[in-house]
Amino acid sequence: MRRVIAFALSIAVSSLAMVPARAEDDIVLRGMGSFHIGGRIAEVSGKPVREIQRMPGGPMSKLDPNGQFMVEQMYVQYFLPKNRKGKLPLLMWHGGGLTGVTFESTPDGREGWLNMFVRKGWDTYVSDAVERGRSGFASPDVWSGEPIFLNYQDPFERFRIGAGEGSWNADPSKRKVLPGDQFPVEAYDNYMKQTVPRWLSTDKAIIDSYVALVDKICPCVLLTHSQGGAIGFLVAEQRPDKIKAIVSIEAATAGKIANAPKLKDTPVLVIFGDYVDEHPRWAAYKKIDMAYGDAIKAAGGNVDWINLPEIGIKGNSHMMMQDRNNAAIADVIQKWLASKGLVE
Amino acid sequence: MRRVIAFALSIAVSSLAMVPARAEDDIVLRGMGSFHIGGRIAEVSGKPVREIQRMPGGPMSKLDPNGQFMVEQMYVQYFLPKNRKGKLPLLMWHGGGLTGVTFESTPDGREGWLNMFVRKGWDTYVSDAVERGRSGFASPDVWSGEPIFLNYQDPFERFRIGAGEGSWNADPSKRKVLPGDQFPVEAYDNYMKQTVPRWLSTDKAIIDSYVALVDKICPCVLLTHSQGGAIGFLVAEQRPDKIKAIVSIEAATAGKIANAPKLKDTPVLVIFGDYVDEHPRWAAYKKIDMAYGDAIKAAGGNVDWINLPEIGIKGNSHMMMQDRNNAAIADVIQKWLASKGLVE
Repeated sequence: MRRVIAFALSIAVSSLAMVPARAEDDIVLRGMGSFHIGGRIAEVSGKPVREIQRMPGGPMSKLDPNGQFMVEQMYVQYFLPKNRKGKLPLLMWHGGGLTGVTFESTPDGREGWLNMFVRKGWDTYVSDAVERGRSGFASPDVWSGEPIFLNYQDPFERFRIGAGEGSWNADPSKRKVLPGDQFPVEAYDNYMKQTVPRWLSTDKAIIDSYVALVDKICPCVLLTHSQGGAIGFLVAEQRPDKIKAIVSIEAATAGKIANAPKLKDTPVLVIFGDYVDEHPRWAAYKKIDMAYGDAIKAAGGNVDWINLPEIGIKGNSHMMMQDRNNAAIADVIQKWLASKGLVE
Repeated sequence: MRRVIAFALSIAVSSLAMVPARAEDDIVLRGMGSFHIGGRIAEVSGKPVREIQRMPGGPMSKLDPNGQFMVEQMYVQYFLPKNRKGKLPLLMWHGGGLTGVTFESTPDGREGWLNMFVRKGWDTYVSDAVERGRSGFASPDVWSGEPIFLNYQDPFERFRIGAGEGSWNADPSKRKVLPGDQFPVEAYDNYMKQTVPRWLSTDKAIIDSYVALVDKICPCVLLTHSQGGAIGFLVAEQRPDKIKAIVSIEAATAGKIANAPKLKDTPVLVIFGDYVDEHPRWAAYKKIDMAYGDAIKAAGGNVDWINLPEIGIKGNSHMMMQDRNNAAIADVIQKWLASKGLVE
């Protein structure tokens, strides 16, 4: 049975007053670009130098595994709409095993939340966390531990696309999808192409680079997902004056309960999708997030909680920004941001 | 002494008639997005399953290193200007140890060739080669070999930023920069942040995914750099009817001489920067590229060759798309493309 969350915000989807820009409309930017931020120089010594051939048929050249290496930097790409409506920059932080691609086109080729929020007039910054995607990763001489890799069934069974453990089958016709699931399951191959390896030992480096980003870009609004949600809360605890709102999509763990009062002036919107309570792992994360939210509220803060099915939006997976109804959820977020005075 | 290449194309920079869009102008897009292409499913078996904690304080969950894995896919991001002037899509393929970021903002924060060619009206597709950046990489259970990592002095000394071997120093004030070098050396830290590990064993996979991209997007024009130049020629040999022009920036090796005649109907522009002949490694690559170009010409093809200093554009490094005068070089390329009838 689905548990009703007492401090839910009542947002009727049908009452949305704003007229969203359509995918057919032009996107007019006053600027776009990218940069890397954070990082540190690591020193390696005592390793043998070798000669390598970088291209078949090319000349030999030296590869020196010693010296100074740039590590733990973070990649950020930004889009600045001409018709700016969001009062602050909007930073999108992806989840574990993924990159900023999470927010770009969906696996089945529709527009994702990056385009949607740029169209809504937000200066939008999409990053790849340290060691993911275009941020690069450090050598075993610098980092301990090894990356983990996700097999085909892992996200299918864990991210509430399939109906839990045992729902995966190599034969697509035999996969057990959750009833009414909104994930574009026919494009699951393309979703798997978006996944990247991740380390389990890099949280501090990830947080450090996000703090550097916040110091460069903010005051701002965070829109976080999964692992990025936990990171977002931990970063906000370090820079509460710079994070003016947090939209947390199914955060996989939260911040530190003892630090939650630091967010008393940062309004938080938590969104969870469908079938959460039926999945022990998501029920566990939800409980952790609720305890953190309660601690913010106990300190006088503002936490609004939306279980999507309770406002009539059903079937959403953990990858709701890619689900078929991703535009409806973007509209819910936009309405909440407007209610907090963050939209012109 | 600089060797004059006989089949140089005479382009006087001062004669450029086109008025380029300025960085201050709006960028108007009829669409933007991303996708992954290519890839294959690899099977792993016989490895022990373990329980991991994906986030500190979170629940334990299964990590199964066995099963099916998506590997060798490629990430592509595209920008489609409303005022389209390029008759075909323009595909930008980066070099080794780098990603598509090569073509985005420069290390010192100016506009790169992505923005410039979008402003010139080209539908532009920037990709991360297989195993770089947002394309992800495969586990040691799937791929043999290890990635290589570049230390701080490596690109400085190899890419004609510094004056060759021994020009690097950890103290920036003691680095020996080539006289008149156009690379924004004060932002060298940011350049190092753009570098990513690469494997030496993945050329076939890289080529396969680029062929898949060509089959999806082309007919088109390729703009390639360094390792991407060799890859570009090898891909064009497989799909000569789909590649309508190639702009090759300092290709690090070329295609297969025996296959060069296949490019007889594909006009090629080769561009090399400054101080090339003084660096044995670049002189070697140039010689390889010249032999390949000669073989295309011998088959009746069209190869135009520009040594930038010979047309008055001096001091360019291997990273000329990021050099201070990157706009001037983009204009040279645009004029050549127009001369081939590829601009409306």
